[in-house]
Amino acid sequence: MTDFRSIVAATGEPQGEPLLVSTAADVEAACAKAAAAFDTYRATDRETRAAFLERIADEILAIGDSLIEAYMAESGLPRPRGEGERGRTMGQLRMFADVVRKGQWQQLRIDPALPDRAPLPRPDLRLRMIPVGPVAVFGASNFPLAFSTAGGDTASALAAGCPVVVKGHPAHPVTGGLIAAAITKAVKDAGLPEGVFQHLVGPSNDLGAALVQNPNIMAVGFTGSRGGGLALARLAQAREVPIPVYAEMSSINPVLLMPEALKARGDALGTAFVGSLTMGAGQFCTNPGLILAIEGEGLDAFVAAATTGVSEAKRQTMLTTGIAAAYAKGVETLSALPGVEKLAEGEIGSTTCGGAVLFQTTGEKFLADKAMGDEVFGASSIIVRCHDEAELLKVLEGLEGQLTATLHMDAADEAAASRLLPVLERKVGRILANGWPTGVEVTHAMVHGGPFPATSDPRSTSVGSLAIDRFLRPVSYQNLAQDVLPPELRDDAFGDGAPRLMDGTLTLN
Amino acid sequence: MTDFRSIVAATGEPQGEPLLVSTAADVEAACAKAAAAFDTYRATDRETRAAFLERIADEILAIGDSLIEAYMAESGLPRPRGEGERGRTMGQLRMFADVVRKGQWQQLRIDPALPDRAPLPRPDLRLRMIPVGPVAVFGASNFPLAFSTAGGDTASALAAGCPVVVKGHPAHPVTGGLIAAAITKAVKDAGLPEGVFQHLVGPSNDLGAALVQNPNIMAVGFTGSRGGGLALARLAQAREVPIPVYAEMSSINPVLLMPEALKARGDALGTAFVGSLTMGAGQFCTNPGLILAIEGEGLDAFVAAATTGVSEAKRQTMLTTGIAAAYAKGVETLSALPGVEKLAEGEIGSTTCGGAVLFQTTGEKFLADKAMGDEVFGASSIIVRCHDEAELLKVLEGLEGQLTATLHMDAADEAAASRLLPVLERKVGRILANGWPTGVEVTHAMVHGGPFPATSDPRSTSVGSLAIDRFLRPVSYQNLAQDVLPPELRDDAFGDGAPRLMDGTLTLN
Repeated sequence: MTDFRSIVAATGEPQGEPLLVSTAADVEAACAKAAAAFDTYRATDRETRAAFLERIADEILAIGDSLIEAYMAESGLPRPRGEGERGRTMGQLRMFADVVRKGQWQQLRIDPALPDRAPLPRPDLRLRMIPVGPVAVFGASNFPLAFSTAGGDTASALAAGCPVVVKGHPAHPVTGGLIAAAITKAVKDAGLPEGVFQHLVGPSNDLGAALVQNPNIMAVGFTGSRGGGLALARLAQAREVPIPVYAEMSSINPVLLMPEALKARGDALGTAFVGSLTMGAGQFCTNPGLILAIEGEGLDAFVAAATTGVSEAKRQTMLTTGIAAAYAKGVETLSALPGVEKLAEGEIGSTTCGGAVLFQTTGEKFLADKAMGDEVFGASSIIVRCHDEAELLKVLEGLEGQLTATLHMDAADEAAASRLLPVLERKVGRILANGWPTGVEVTHAMVHGGPFPATSDPRSTSVGSLAIDRFLRPVSYQNLAQDVLPPELRDDAFGDGAPRLMDGTLTLN
Repeated sequence: MTDFRSIVAATGEPQGEPLLVSTAADVEAACAKAAAAFDTYRATDRETRAAFLERIADEILAIGDSLIEAYMAESGLPRPRGEGERGRTMGQLRMFADVVRKGQWQQLRIDPALPDRAPLPRPDLRLRMIPVGPVAVFGASNFPLAFSTAGGDTASALAAGCPVVVKGHPAHPVTGGLIAAAITKAVKDAGLPEGVFQHLVGPSNDLGAALVQNPNIMAVGFTGSRGGGLALARLAQAREVPIPVYAEMSSINPVLLMPEALKARGDALGTAFVGSLTMGAGQFCTNPGLILAIEGEGLDAFVAAATTGVSEAKRQTMLTTGIAAAYAKGVETLSALPGVEKLAEGEIGSTTCGGAVLFQTTGEKFLADKAMGDEVFGASSIIVRCHDEAELLKVLEGLEGQLTATLHMDAADEAAASRLLPVLERKVGRILANGWPTGVEVTHAMVHGGPFPATSDPRSTSVGSLAIDRFLRPVSYQNLAQDVLPPELRDDAFGDGAPRLMDGTLTLN
């Protein structure tokens, strides 16, 4: 086996000493420790758990600039992006601390006994959510901080009360190692068991497979390729006890240019589109890979501006040479499809860089060849020119599930947009107007999810506070004595700030 | 192929004319109709949908006594049970009407725009739950009303806004047909599209397989055997677009007799246990199939009373001859296991009847043979005599997932019960004290669910108002114009009675 080393994205060359690789025995030990820590960790009160999440955020900041330097070297992404992503990662942890404190996630429900009900008395019933158990988290390559070792999956699982075992992404082992050390310090300083957070590293897929197959793991969070996500889902389903896999996988994020908006500002939209397409070398799950519009002068203006923009785009360092190679291959495959016309190409890519590419086709041709809708991870996009709204609707209905759909629209487009909305709702997790899908707010009303194959489970989101629900399950307590009930379900806990559904009526508190 | 007919449970003989059997083309047509009805049905406002659910309840009552007669003939269950179950079924529909009206299920979330936020403004984000799409429901044999054609799965899916295609249980086709006609009338009278509810019937498993494999079906509700549930889950996972299967399958529902309670009333507990064990010929998902206790005089008294009770138990008509045969086979298998002692047997069963049987073993032997923990659907139970609390805990830790765990306990048992509670929470969906698991309240704090193999998805319940969540998924709307937003997310909908999470803070109304 070759050594496992950190790779500098810009050169594709290794840096530093060979890194230790986790073994099958390490997986076994980590999962056993996580299971042993579960009952202790989940019994922490809301304040303790919230303070622990905040402590992780503080420890991440305390790493200092060495984190940003490792991030830049390993990902090829620039300093402002790294600093922004660090802020996002810390903000995410603090948001979950706030969510944990407020207690709504516990979904407390109390149905008082009805001793006089006929023909039979009703027992006292109380419900709360408990965490599902130890969670395996697979970091993503394209957000080495916000979707990786201390990313949204880790933050939401820890918030839910689940111990976490991270399989660090091999494309940023130094960055991941620094973060893991920060979390481990927070665990220790909070007086929590070691098993609450553990970090496994290595280049092989076997490591991740062993993790998902370990009987102590009860759920999986993953962000990455469709192939990777589906492989993990298959392993999880084949277990003696199947477990849920939350895999965020593949999306081309249709952007609909509505007629009136196109007429008013086709040119400006074309320029803005290129900005979204090429940001971060196009390495976003929400990259706008598909433009849908109806033929007309507005569309011509959009195409002209986008063509100019893409032609002038500089190539950019991609996250790994593997991703750069896959991007080049994807572009080649798309180029070779009959009916696909290459409109523009920016500076040509290299073994480490990707260049922007823009294609176009017609609605009819797109409908005839499913391969045109395959994701090409990077700054590639295809414009689909439709005859009319009916054809555009047909193209939409034929799409696979997506993370996002974007509408560029003016007031005069509202009637048409309203006709499209039900279809969009069935196809995507987030619908946005007059913006670009590449910004994903970490907030309460965010859905970063969507129907298959955008994710493996459309009932969930991996960004935003609703993500905590993925790692919870309900337990009901019937006629239990006050002292035996979990603290938050006892009568003397009323007024602790958590909302409760009392006999079907929601009460704040 | 032999004719498909209604069978009288008490005789095993057919009654009435041969029944029409749904074909593969019927499945195809029903699913297409359901998909076509989806956008219309899910756009109904809360009041319309609630009134529709209440209308179904009224139509079920309006069938009159012919429903109860069909129920009794096809299930072999007595009149009071049939009338009670009809009331439960109607109550369930009315509870969901109330839930729909209150609107909490929509989980509305609004994060207002922050135009002045630096470095970038925050967009306006709004979230609601939408229904997942057409749902396939498989009725259960043991609750021909409450868990079948108009049962909890159908009620919660319709409440969520999902069209439903029921695969009626072949053991009660006349009962199911009457119910289906009542729902169909309610659909028509409410002016809803026909595709909102459809009913397929037939004896073959192929029908159900075709239903689960149909691309228009987006989720499955099932109550039945482990084999049946797992087969459907496999089909659902193998689809081009995998879908969730909510299968409630197999549970032996451990009952823990705590030392002080046993000491105080071992005899009375033994008698009461037999009542729960033999109710409805033991044909409940929550039947107490496993008794756990620590050796002592109290346990001896329990065993003596239970032995007497079971010995005196009359055999009872089972739901089908197939179930009676499977029960006899299960009892035979358990009897033949080394280390299992048959304590008592009631009146011997027949081709249509099942008799009660009581077994015992030791903790050590139970731990050594997993087969002792297999479900025997019917009035069979096994007492596991443990040396001490440590052994009892070991037995608990070794159990598969269960729907329920029961504690019979006195105040002096509370410390011991608190030690067991974390284990029970990890193993089951509902923990109850000083009662019997066979009563399942339809209410807000109920969980009728639990870790695999009790169900295929422990994050859910199939009874109670929380069951609606199974058929919902979140969609986020970013910067959409007021007129394009779904009505309940517009500013002018505030005050419509539904709670909203406003910038992370829960507000009523």
